[in-house]
Amino acid sequence: MNFLEARIAKDGIVKEGNVLKVDSFLNHQMDIALLDQMAAEFHQRFSNKPITKVLTIEASGIAIACSVARCFGVPMVFAKKTKSINLDGDMYVAEVDSFTHKKKNTVIVSKKFLSPDDHVLIIDDFLANGCALQGLISIVESAEATVEGCGIAIEKGFQDGGWRIRNLGYHVESLAIIESMDASTGAITFREQEA
Amino acid sequence: MNFLEARIAKDGIVKEGNVLKVDSFLNHQMDIALLDQMAAEFHQRFSNKPITKVLTIEASGIAIACSVARCFGVPMVFAKKTKSINLDGDMYVAEVDSFTHKKKNTVIVSKKFLSPDDHVLIIDDFLANGCALQGLISIVESAEATVEGCGIAIEKGFQDGGWRIRNLGYHVESLAIIESMDASTGAITFREQEA
Repeated sequence: MNFLEARIAKDGIVKEGNVLKVDSFLNHQMDIALLDQMAAEFHQRFSNKPITKVLTIEASGIAIACSVARCFGVPMVFAKKTKSINLDGDMYVAEVDSFTHKKKNTVIVSKKFLSPDDHVLIIDDFLANGCALQGLISIVESAEATVEGCGIAIEKGFQDGGWRIRNLGYHVESLAIIESMDASTGAITFREQEA
Repeated sequence: MNFLEARIAKDGIVKEGNVLKVDSFLNHQMDIALLDQMAAEFHQRFSNKPITKVLTIEASGIAIACSVARCFGVPMVFAKKTKSINLDGDMYVAEVDSFTHKKKNTVIVSKKFLSPDDHVLIIDDFLANGCALQGLISIVESAEATVEGCGIAIEKGFQDGGWRIRNLGYHVESLAIIESMDASTGAITFREQEA
């Protein structure tokens, strides 16, 4: 078990409906040392890529993405979920479904912050059905920028998002892939990954 | 001018309706080195307080709050704006108005993450009418924890939130206080603060 799998096994809580609560360390209360350790791991896994920008989606991706951007010495951009009066001008837009909130979100990134010269590392906390990630990929490609890869904290391997996105040729690195989980016992099984 | 005032003067854009856009470095694209410099400044200003937790509100407060939490070596908790199916159990709740989005938000923090032993530093990117900050203060006090202070990146000094909250006895430190701004000329005047 790597450090993140160990932390999920220790502090993650399995709920009915394939919900994994990691709110004590990853998406409500944040363990900063853990974020930095995850960021160092993403930095190592994508160290051969000429990353110019880290892209994520609000809200819980922001903390991890900031740490990753610090490792690469590049800016972080977060996609916004609703149209704000502060966000005028031209924007890249994608529609995404949210598993957690059971609704459609419009996701936007200002055109000022992505250009064809950009080599983008996309970061998010969860990958399940892949809709959020596909929305971010579509935004990067609308900008004619390059998707260098996707770094995910926790992938739900029993949903097909990771399979679909890898199948499209994208380099997806997930620090922990959950093969199965059982709300009645709290047991979580991780997919074996190469060290 | 301090480093943040200088950056606002250089890259901030004044829009009609008292809107200041800082989306190129603070709340859409994030300059990580600037965040870390702001965090170091907050750490210095609150260094005599026994901070155990940093609290902010999603989404744009998260990045600054993470950097501040790293400086203090404590966890960061961010308040959530909508009720998520992943957030069950008991929660502290506050109602806040949003200036930017012209709507009311329900803000929640899980009771697990604030206790009477906590000494909380509240961090946010903007302070204008003070509704968000008052919501966070009310959540900390519902938990019978101690509000040790509020660290704000940019305060709109021509709105009364800062005045009201200082008047209630809270220690508010704003790195930049805007006295006035003019959308027709783009001019921004900062309040003189002690160095």
